Amino acid sequence: MLHHPHHDGSTLYVPEQAPALGDVVNLRIFVPHDARGESGASAVTLRAVLDGEPHLAPAEQEESDASGTWWRAPLRLVNPVTRYRFLLTGPPESFAGAYAWLNATGIHRREVTDTADFRMISYPPTPDWVADAVVYQVFPDRFGRSAAADTRTPPMWARPAAWDDAVVHQGPRTPLQFFGGDLAGIVEHLDHVAELGATVLYLTPFFPAHSNHRYDASTFDRVDPSLGGDEAFTALVNAAHARGLRVMGDLTTNHTGDSHEWFLAAQADAEAPETAYYFFEKHPDDYASWFDLPSLPKLDHSSTALRRRMYEGADSVVSRWLTAGLDAWRIDVANMTGRYGAQDLAHDVARTLVATAREAKSDVWVLAEHGHDAGPDLQGDGWHGTMDYAGFTRPVWTWLGGAENSTRPFFGQPTASPVLGGIDVVTGMREVHAEMPWRAQTASTLHLDSHDLPRFRTATGGDGSGDISLRGREKHLVGTVLQLTMPGVPSIFAGDEIGLTGVDGEHSRTPFPWNRQQEWDTRTLEFYRLLIELRREYVALRRGGLRWVHVGDDSMTFLREHDGERILVHAARADHPPVILPSRALGIASADDLIPLLGERCTRAADYVLLPSGGPRAHVYRLTAEP
Amino acid sequence: MLHHPHHDGSTLYVPEQAPALGDVVNLRIFVPHDARGESGASAVTLRAVLDGEPHLAPAEQEESDASGTWWRAPLRLVNPVTRYRFLLTGPPESFAGAYAWLNATGIHRREVTDTADFRMISYPPTPDWVADAVVYQVFPDRFGRSAAADTRTPPMWARPAAWDDAVVHQGPRTPLQFFGGDLAGIVEHLDHVAELGATVLYLTPFFPAHSNHRYDASTFDRVDPSLGGDEAFTALVNAAHARGLRVMGDLTTNHTGDSHEWFLAAQADAEAPETAYYFFEKHPDDYASWFDLPSLPKLDHSSTALRRRMYEGADSVVSRWLTAGLDAWRIDVANMTGRYGAQDLAHDVARTLVATAREAKSDVWVLAEHGHDAGPDLQGDGWHGTMDYAGFTRPVWTWLGGAENSTRPFFGQPTASPVLGGIDVVTGMREVHAEMPWRAQTASTLHLDSHDLPRFRTATGGDGSGDISLRGREKHLVGTVLQLTMPGVPSIFAGDEIGLTGVDGEHSRTPFPWNRQQEWDTRTLEFYRLLIELRREYVALRRGGLRWVHVGDDSMTFLREHDGERILVHAARADHPPVILPSRALGIASADDLIPLLGERCTRAADYVLLPSGGPRAHVYRLTAEP
Repeated sequence: MLHHPHHDGSTLYVPEQAPALGDVVNLRIFVPHDARGESGASAVTLRAVLDGEPHLAPAEQEESDASGTWWRAPLRLVNPVTRYRFLLTGPPESFAGAYAWLNATGIHRREVTDTADFRMISYPPTPDWVADAVVYQVFPDRFGRSAAADTRTPPMWARPAAWDDAVVHQGPRTPLQFFGGDLAGIVEHLDHVAELGATVLYLTPFFPAHSNHRYDASTFDRVDPSLGGDEAFTALVNAAHARGLRVMGDLTTNHTGDSHEWFLAAQADAEAPETAYYFFEKHPDDYASWFDLPSLPKLDHSSTALRRRMYEGADSVVSRWLTAGLDAWRIDVANMTGRYGAQDLAHDVARTLVATAREAKSDVWVLAEHGHDAGPDLQGDGWHGTMDYAGFTRPVWTWLGGAENSTRPFFGQPTASPVLGGIDVVTGMREVHAEMPWRAQTASTLHLDSHDLPRFRTATGGDGSGDISLRGREKHLVGTVLQLTMPGVPSIFAGDEIGLTGVDGEHSRTPFPWNRQQEWDTRTLEFYRLLIELRREYVALRRGGLRWVHVGDDSMTFLREHDGERILVHAARADHPPVILPSRALGIASADDLIPLLGERCTRAADYVLLPSGGPRAHVYRLTAEP
Repeated sequence: MLHHPHHDGSTLYVPEQAPALGDVVNLRIFVPHDARGESGASAVTLRAVLDGEPHLAPAEQEESDASGTWWRAPLRLVNPVTRYRFLLTGPPESFAGAYAWLNATGIHRREVTDTADFRMISYPPTPDWVADAVVYQVFPDRFGRSAAADTRTPPMWARPAAWDDAVVHQGPRTPLQFFGGDLAGIVEHLDHVAELGATVLYLTPFFPAHSNHRYDASTFDRVDPSLGGDEAFTALVNAAHARGLRVMGDLTTNHTGDSHEWFLAAQADAEAPETAYYFFEKHPDDYASWFDLPSLPKLDHSSTALRRRMYEGADSVVSRWLTAGLDAWRIDVANMTGRYGAQDLAHDVARTLVATAREAKSDVWVLAEHGHDAGPDLQGDGWHGTMDYAGFTRPVWTWLGGAENSTRPFFGQPTASPVLGGIDVVTGMREVHAEMPWRAQTASTLHLDSHDLPRFRTATGGDGSGDISLRGREKHLVGTVLQLTMPGVPSIFAGDEIGLTGVDGEHSRTPFPWNRQQEWDTRTLEFYRLLIELRREYVALRRGGLRWVHVGDDSMTFLREHDGERILVHAARADHPPVILPSRALGIASADDLIPLLGERCTRAADYVLLPSGGPRAHVYRLTAEP
């Protein structure tokens, strides 16, 4: 794949990262020389759809070196979203041959639709800091418990538990088990988060509710007193900011709890303004709800009053908590928000909410939960990015999750986790990401797991008993390398870094074992710290393009490239046939130019480089020669 | 591919063809037995996105026969457009294996996006008659010239030509050459159209204009006097209807001519109401236009007055001509209509125009011109279908167009026509059609060429001199078989059926040589008549599903299946390796059950059927056994 022509949305290929309508961007395409050292193409044509019609313009050669040729094609942004791809042509013996399209899924020697076209966006860009972020996800009931928690009376619904109790993860008591973690408890452990290298603290909901997960809010106006209330929130935000950590809140825009003050007002009086916030089939007890659960009534976003109260304007919930200190929002079930029957206001909600958030805090980041194919909802004027379950988590699970637990249902499917080869996995990843603008892909979070999934370590190596195979641990670390080196924002669920396990989403909501440090997998913790440190040190890992170099069933190899810096990542899930790369195509003189940052050295073989072929194992190299 | 599980939008798979919101449709999936005669899958799961969230439901086995098993999965239509696909699972040795998705591009043993999901639509359906239609396209200046034409003074701009003059197809005189064909001339030759078997007469524009193509209308209020005016229109419509032919008009919604009465009023007075119909950068001479041609000023669909005048309500142009006798509209440059800079009203225009048309004539058909990827514009509440250049014409050209004319630019591209193998061609076709609801695909027109393209016969066999190779003629006929047997509405450009040639779109606008019948390719004419007759006789060719059976570089083989009727089509562009099909998988006892309707008999070889392997040649068979 080193001979494949390449383009993506990173600065090497799109120097103008925040263009406005009417601006000209200077698109660049890299066409590697072929195995004979000849040009991969003799002509490159830009095809862009402007005002609904495809237009063609020739690209020009910009510069050449030993490994290939850069072409340049200016594109004026006529529309807010511009789709484009490239046609490469050349002599029959060239790489391009007579007819080859380059789009976001790669090279196609046939006709293609516009689906996988690259997207150029002229809406306001994602705030710059997001590219450098590493998120640490905390489930407030389970992360830290301050002494103050002992002085509080637990909520009526709660079944209090001791910190070392087993997590109840099945049956009706699951949402009621209450470990009593609080915001002051999080402050007590912020040093752990900062020392790990995270830059964003993501809190699942902190509003009062009738469950330990708090996705069934009873108000959005104050922080749950069980967590310490509004003062504890302010103290946490200040403590986080003092350590350079930003704070992300979690808002349910699709529904509230049935104990929510709005819903109670609505149920009490059919004439109340709040009645219009919900979908009552028949007042007061027949109403639309999330997955038909009556405890989670669905919100009707055609209500202007609801919009104003929740996310439109400075008095809204969205605005108020940003002003109070939040730096970002994660939007729960964004994929369903505003969608009900013949009504589809999803894009309108996203646009309005993000505009409000930006007014409150100009560099706010708004992340949308979306469990499947988020591309169509990320076209640039709404959510900045998504939790990339479809383009990262699921593919990585199918590659690294294993035969060890093939009887457990794969998340979101009725079957066991399939085990797929690297080529199928990467094809799936590229297909998902091709429908996102680059800026949306890179503002999306990369999760190995979350509070909604089994722990990744259990997926890679567990048999359900809590025992993890050695091979499973190593596969977890390979996954961590992918999480910290691929485009997107790594998001670590608290406890993954010390090797916690969990057989389902509820079971993974583990109280952090501060008091049992002897159980921590400290090798894993050091590994996470090292990878995050590498990511902080090398801008190419944070902001570089992604060029696939080689994919086999058991290994995947890619370049992250930025101005003046190039990083090669080679990840293997098992021992695999040797991956041998031509030095010239890599743009280096020999294997000596591949400086290992993680893992083993490469071997030199004449004009080739031989990558290590053991696994599960991952390797990261810096290339000394510039692109 | 006979072992591939299948589903499409035809009645075998979706018994309810016109469901409303809230209805339940009973989706059916056919899972062939594998080569061992075992079940292809042990479980089938329906995955549908409802209110933005994927839901899963198990399918149930309905019935089995020797060739496979039918599964059934009910789906309630919660949203106007519902995307769905199927997950198939089974033992490792089964066809499905551990994990296989079935979507509109076929089987995928990996994660996929929702892009190629099947679509179920609850908007009003396409009128039923469209499925049985065959369109005949006439360019009024070039089809027939009545004696009355001699009595008329040609328009000022026109350069009159005699019927046998060579067509001017390059340079500034191209649009001015005026052969003087008229509507009465079309009436004189309607018997030819009816005898061919066409059911719809499609006229490119008949409004007054300043060119022979009339896409630069100067009014939409009357028929061009050069064509015989409004009375000639009424006479033509009556004569067509008397022969069972419907009539389709052609409307430019994207632009008018600069001689249009609206534009003249707008230019004359910046305060005129018509000024708001256009995009004036600086009144009166700086305005937006189609491809920056000042003679074609672009319309601004944000103008309510324009909408009312053109396509909203009973007084509109769209409504009036339907009331006056048209049965259908073809919308010119629909892909650009309503799209300009930050404005995108395209779907709104489509929805409004079609609603108006339906008010005027309840069974109207509205076809949208779209030269590239129309799928996203065909999601069910606007245009019924498109001119399927992307999903039929271009793929067929890349397969049958040939090395004979590899120096001629491929339409819409800067390169020569690429020659692609059948697998790439079919992959491209399926990718385009996967993004259309089945009802939109089948209401789209299948063109081998049109007034905007070189003649197909020249593409398959010409060298530019007008001489056509024997092989090229045969490939033209293979293309005709595809045109008349694939899902969609065949649309024949007048003259194709007698073997006319043309090296570009303008050159193809050939005066029909009624007076030189000795030049007609009568074998081709008979071939067209036979194919259209087959299509009329066999409902499966008009309304059946499409199941791919085998694709090689030089041959493509597919089944069209409908309740109680099955047709096998085998098309080859060249001699090719034998295609051998297992009789049981075909659902027949032996080759004797394949009754040739066109071409040669098949050969029996034990439990297999051997299809003819010569080419260019196409064969059509009726299967005697029912599905």
